[in-house]
Amino acid sequence: MDVKQLREEIRNGTFNRTTSGAAGNKVQANVVILPKSYAFDFLLYATRNKKAVPVIEVMEDGKVESMYAEGSDIRMDIPKYNIYREGVLTETVTDIKDYWQPDFVTFLIGCSFTFEQAILEADIEMKHIAEGRNVAMYKTDIATAPAGVFSGELVVSMRPFKKSLVDRVSDITAQFPNMHGRPVHYGEPSAIGVTDIKTPEYGEPVDIGEDEVPVFWACGVTPQNAALNAKPEIMITHAPGHMFVTDMHNEDFKET
Amino acid sequence: MDVKQLREEIRNGTFNRTTSGAAGNKVQANVVILPKSYAFDFLLYATRNKKAVPVIEVMEDGKVESMYAEGSDIRMDIPKYNIYREGVLTETVTDIKDYWQPDFVTFLIGCSFTFEQAILEADIEMKHIAEGRNVAMYKTDIATAPAGVFSGELVVSMRPFKKSLVDRVSDITAQFPNMHGRPVHYGEPSAIGVTDIKTPEYGEPVDIGEDEVPVFWACGVTPQNAALNAKPEIMITHAPGHMFVTDMHNEDFKET
Repeated sequence: MDVKQLREEIRNGTFNRTTSGAAGNKVQANVVILPKSYAFDFLLYATRNKKAVPVIEVMEDGKVESMYAEGSDIRMDIPKYNIYREGVLTETVTDIKDYWQPDFVTFLIGCSFTFEQAILEADIEMKHIAEGRNVAMYKTDIATAPAGVFSGELVVSMRPFKKSLVDRVSDITAQFPNMHGRPVHYGEPSAIGVTDIKTPEYGEPVDIGEDEVPVFWACGVTPQNAALNAKPEIMITHAPGHMFVTDMHNEDFKET
Repeated sequence: MDVKQLREEIRNGTFNRTTSGAAGNKVQANVVILPKSYAFDFLLYATRNKKAVPVIEVMEDGKVESMYAEGSDIRMDIPKYNIYREGVLTETVTDIKDYWQPDFVTFLIGCSFTFEQAILEADIEMKHIAEGRNVAMYKTDIATAPAGVFSGELVVSMRPFKKSLVDRVSDITAQFPNMHGRPVHYGEPSAIGVTDIKTPEYGEPVDIGEDEVPVFWACGVTPQNAALNAKPEIMITHAPGHMFVTDMHNEDFKET
């Protein structure tokens, strides 16, 4: 499907499910919207934690069109938004026109959909995709570098792979440093503070075969987690899996 | 000289000249200090113009010690500071204790001293250093990407080299992406809007031999220029050549 048409269907409500697999090789982005008073701390947090929070665009206060998505409007072009007040999820909505404040700053953040596409194109299967599930995500005991009001532990996503494939998968994702890049860990989950691999904090669990190892990547939920620790009076994000679809090709973010 | 001792001599006023050549292989940094209300716009400007504004550290409001310089105090450890009010240079002072505001945010920005050291270590001479002059700097007609109140043209530094050396010099400096990296241009000055190569806007002129070409790098004066366009009520920078000396080795910033 053409991404302009997809954004239009999202805007008029025809398309209202997750965007996983819906945008082919186009870049999909995590979204965090905050009042400008939090923008410096958040951008600094991102700068200090690039692997987890790879900001690909900042839309300053007053801007609603992404430079990566012609004719887009960030207030309407995401299928589902989460509204958080003082760190608590209070509403899930399909547009945020009524919530918009002139001082809102929007951060677009790289997403693992990009490197997953590259893994698939190398003919390597991922179980959560084959089973139509959300990827499993865990809080670790790895502290992120704090910035102002933002702090917290690194959140990781996990995909199991056969041992023989780990190096290749690692090299594939390393080509996308703005989409979380190389894994942060593989092997023993407890080494990074993941005590119960069967019970992810976010997403859905996935079986790890006897000949497989769990591979962990820094995850775009990290900044949401940090933002919730900061308890801003209002914060808006995409709902999990309901991403902002851009006009950019995944390949445009390949750097090797 | 030991850098801790150097910072101490700077602090007590014994050392009060430029730091060019005074810190061996240790990283020296450009400094921009702004009230927090400008910090988001400035950090975003840096993010959008990494080649000219490679931020290596942000010291948030309340912090005066750099993580790269043990025991340092940014209010006293620079030989000479420039105070700008509404974009106009009003004072040059040797410490800023009386000017310090609790909302000041300090940006340390990579400096070409680092790549110059690497060029020297490759046994390649630079005329401005041999002659004991400041490097020649020029405004170009290349617009930087604006962010909030910050905008303006790219400022470049110029060093002439024999044609046969340009590729090698370019590759040496490319190893330091956080210290302006690869040249932005070499050859015809007018191609980047430099109309009078004999009259630099900043620094001192240097002769270009018949067998030499001018090579241009993005320059750390770019953010000062942008900040002056923005006319903040107060901004403090190091005086040209009077840098902040860190404990870090130039090699620590080498990325190949």
